[in-house]
Amino acid sequence: KRAKKTNPEHLVRQILAGNITALSQAITLVESKNNLHLKTANHIINNCLPHSGNSIRIGITGVPGVGKSTFIEALGNYLTTKNHRVAVLAVDPSSSITKGSILGDKTRMEDLVKNENAFIRPSASGDSLGGVAQHTRESIVLCEAAGYDVIIVETVGVGQSETAVHSMVDFFLLLKLAGAGDELQGIKRGIMEMADTIAINKADGDNLKAAKLAKVEFNRALHLYPLKVSRWQPKVVLCSALKNEGISDIWNVVKLYISQTKENNSFSDKRKEQNTYWFLQTINDALKQEFYSNSNIEIELQKRILQIENSKISPFTAARDLLQLYYSSKEI
Amino acid sequence: KRAKKTNPEHLVRQILAGNITALSQAITLVESKNNLHLKTANHIINNCLPHSGNSIRIGITGVPGVGKSTFIEALGNYLTTKNHRVAVLAVDPSSSITKGSILGDKTRMEDLVKNENAFIRPSASGDSLGGVAQHTRESIVLCEAAGYDVIIVETVGVGQSETAVHSMVDFFLLLKLAGAGDELQGIKRGIMEMADTIAINKADGDNLKAAKLAKVEFNRALHLYPLKVSRWQPKVVLCSALKNEGISDIWNVVKLYISQTKENNSFSDKRKEQNTYWFLQTINDALKQEFYSNSNIEIELQKRILQIENSKISPFTAARDLLQLYYSSKEI
Repeated sequence: KRAKKTNPEHLVRQILAGNITALSQAITLVESKNNLHLKTANHIINNCLPHSGNSIRIGITGVPGVGKSTFIEALGNYLTTKNHRVAVLAVDPSSSITKGSILGDKTRMEDLVKNENAFIRPSASGDSLGGVAQHTRESIVLCEAAGYDVIIVETVGVGQSETAVHSMVDFFLLLKLAGAGDELQGIKRGIMEMADTIAINKADGDNLKAAKLAKVEFNRALHLYPLKVSRWQPKVVLCSALKNEGISDIWNVVKLYISQTKENNSFSDKRKEQNTYWFLQTINDALKQEFYSNSNIEIELQKRILQIENSKISPFTAARDLLQLYYSSKEI
Repeated sequence: KRAKKTNPEHLVRQILAGNITALSQAITLVESKNNLHLKTANHIINNCLPHSGNSIRIGITGVPGVGKSTFIEALGNYLTTKNHRVAVLAVDPSSSITKGSILGDKTRMEDLVKNENAFIRPSASGDSLGGVAQHTRESIVLCEAAGYDVIIVETVGVGQSETAVHSMVDFFLLLKLAGAGDELQGIKRGIMEMADTIAINKADGDNLKAAKLAKVEFNRALHLYPLKVSRWQPKVVLCSALKNEGISDIWNVVKLYISQTKENNSFSDKRKEQNTYWFLQTINDALKQEFYSNSNIEIELQKRILQIENSKISPFTAARDLLQLYYSSKEI
């Protein structure tokens, strides 16, 4: 509604100068539902693109209670002492429903939020994972253009959000706990295969023994997977974010990963693939959206699913019928 | 070309009577590219549907050399001695390219092919996995209507073919070898998570010790995964298809799985899900096919990918541009 007049060229210049207010403003435009805003956002992103990419993008996931915020705060603060500038983003499609978004409560990262070399942005709210993921993906470009050289993307792992985050980062870190009884519950299938490293958090005090055992087990499990294209063998590390232990070890693993994948070119190959992935994914999502929101289709779809469930029609015949209906309705 | 006139009602009656020639003829219609044939095939499938479903569908995968044919022959022959009627199908999208289709050389299963309670059909050839998978999926219906109560679907694991087979069977079996040095190479990521059971084949003679060790390792790895929706804990079994050892053990595992999943309803839930999956998948594939084969799009697509790779345009802007081009070209 309050479509304030924005000068995109001015905003781009300010972002490139590292102005945090301009960066925040641009991200707000990216997340807007106002068409005028989106056009401006588009313009800004395309002008920031040539200045983006020069960063390490790290995805972090783990079940609630694993200590993600504390970990990100510890890692973020550590990195700023190493002269890095750190941006923390999030993909949480549930935030618009629950109203309780991750990173929404900035007090969760009290120290990091005060750190002038860190930029924290709560998850965009949105109706769909696709929308939220796109906003985060575009925000990465803006943050990089503003000079942030480490981008951390947090996800709580709702629905397919890990896949989305995995597809926008260079390095994917899975946080786990040991000594919590059944430490393997709650992690969705396939997540372990995505991980470039597993960090077992809260590996301190009475937990240390169990954590060490878990390390051996996870290492064994990770070795059962075939090597990734990058030829990187995923690692398992122990840490205690609360006690600030093991954080530098994890950063060393990240650095090792980056140097190894840059050497064999899989770093840039992966980024290219990710770009193409988002390009095609956006197209495919839009095509489906067009089809399934067609009013004729909406009515017929439920009918057909019932017929399929009652073995009245094969799924393929039903699909063919709906497609015919769709294309003929578009021709009129 | 030789679109022989077929009486579909007659063919359906013959299939239901268990006539193998009629069954083969119907499958040939399903695989045809002739539109008239396809219409007939469609009619036949929808009339066979109410008589289908009463079977156990088993998917089998494993790298070349693991002994898939020998295993399927051993399992198939064993099942016919238990009064089952067994149909063996395949999903191999590469067959049309390499001309060497799996199951194509029926002599690979010399005994089973002579077994009157077994029906073996080579993989349909086709240009796309989607096409081949659809033909196999429809052939399952026909085989079931013809009275086959165990359907085995073999895949060599090219591209996404395991996922396709996994989505059309009740039970997914991964064949592996031990003692082959690096026994884990060559299996694509994610396959192990799909397996309802891993069978370590060639567990005989000098291989036995290594096979037993591998069994322990795989069991450990499988326990690291969260339980499937069916609450089934995947098993690891040893066998030697060549020596006909362990085959009954595997069949007992299948029976245990079926009774357990039927009891908690996950058996029928999974089948319903699979039907809906194929319905939506067919629609989504067709929408993409329509888009990407549009002549305007084909030209622009490559241009945009280049621009994206050179950071000239964001993947999202590029997607939006192409979609605009597509929909405006359809309106004219």
